[in-house]
Amino acid sequence: MTGWLAVAGLGPGADALITPEVQAALSEATDIVGYIPYVARIAPRPGLTLHPSDNRVELDRARAALEMAATGRRVVVVSSGDPGVFAMASALFEALEGAPDPAFDIRILPGITAMLAAAAALGAPLGHDFCAINLSDNLKPWALIERRLRLAAQADFAMAFYNPRSKSRPEGFARALDILRAECGPDRLISFARAVSTPEQALTTVTLAEARPEMADMRTVVILGNSATRRAGRWVYSPRSAP
Amino acid sequence: MTGWLAVAGLGPGADALITPEVQAALSEATDIVGYIPYVARIAPRPGLTLHPSDNRVELDRARAALEMAATGRRVVVVSSGDPGVFAMASALFEALEGAPDPAFDIRILPGITAMLAAAAALGAPLGHDFCAINLSDNLKPWALIERRLRLAAQADFAMAFYNPRSKSRPEGFARALDILRAECGPDRLISFARAVSTPEQALTTVTLAEARPEMADMRTVVILGNSATRRAGRWVYSPRSAP
Repeated sequence: MTGWLAVAGLGPGADALITPEVQAALSEATDIVGYIPYVARIAPRPGLTLHPSDNRVELDRARAALEMAATGRRVVVVSSGDPGVFAMASALFEALEGAPDPAFDIRILPGITAMLAAAAALGAPLGHDFCAINLSDNLKPWALIERRLRLAAQADFAMAFYNPRSKSRPEGFARALDILRAECGPDRLISFARAVSTPEQALTTVTLAEARPEMADMRTVVILGNSATRRAGRWVYSPRSAP
Repeated sequence: MTGWLAVAGLGPGADALITPEVQAALSEATDIVGYIPYVARIAPRPGLTLHPSDNRVELDRARAALEMAATGRRVVVVSSGDPGVFAMASALFEALEGAPDPAFDIRILPGITAMLAAAAALGAPLGHDFCAINLSDNLKPWALIERRLRLAAQADFAMAFYNPRSKSRPEGFARALDILRAECGPDRLISFARAVSTPEQALTTVTLAEARPEMADMRTVVILGNSATRRAGRWVYSPRSAP
């Protein structure tokens, strides 16, 4: 049997947002590898082995997936959203680096990343130049996050924030909001999109003056508008023209 | 008949990257509205009217789609990639602004945007904080583009560039490359992904010293790495840890 490895994005939650390319890989797989809640989205079937693992073991998970593919298994590493945006694809290449190119096929299968599903549910807040920043300081110093927030505000980018807030870092997001208020002023629109595309989806848009850290948790993507972002009825959007 | 309007992303080219949500909207539609090459991707069928239109008439197109939905038609405005990333969703809300909320349903249906499909084909160059910049100066002054390039480089973002080069602006991308060389140095990796996910897909990765403006055209998405972006075998990726 010829093994292969795919790193696939399951999108933000709804099955209707999983691409046919990813569905085909899942249906041909012998093994599914990933973080527990993502593997839980895959229906069991005969011939398919599920390998759920805990958070923060991304490199171990990538190595295990590579070893299985080398023995002829057809392995899909599942990520939420898109595997290339703050997810498993980078961990896979870290695990590969320095080793000879594997003899089996490796593919990265894109998915709908949370910020784009959130933007669609809100309207079009990312309709002009924007940036995506992971607010977790697990893998980078907090000072770098602050520097990026300031420079992104000076560039007048709309901004999408992943991993805004966790129990282990309750104060980081509050500091981020303080920096953004100082750089962008109190009237800038900020949207909180929780559990996008699932039955629990909740959308809230307020000004930076009204924003509170508790409005975000680890299931929330936060989108800050640029200086021209505005409301149109129940929608929020950034015009195509420069602010 | 109750009309509705959906703005749907067709992804970068391959049918296997169109979400089931978008396919369902297309199958229920009575009218498809969009730029000529995107409407050409929709198979004709009885009961479906195709309304292809030229580039740079986005507001007229949005107004026509709103008028059709108001008369009870089921209208899908098609965009390449994701409708919220440099595409039709913002134009729709510009057309809506100031008018009373329509009585019919409006939905934005996300899609796989070109930079994420390109990143997946290349490896994971957007695996750390990144920004997306439209290099067209149709709707913003070139000075703002230059300012954003400099600030994004100072923030050490990976960068995805849409609309890098057109016949009407042959010199803009050359100037962008000059700025990036000055800010990021000659060794920074830059990737050119043309016609991603189609049979004509072509991927090239070089250093900024080797990059030439002719490597991009309007079917190309360009991805610049951050200071830690590197090769792993035939792949290009940005590590999850801070540069």
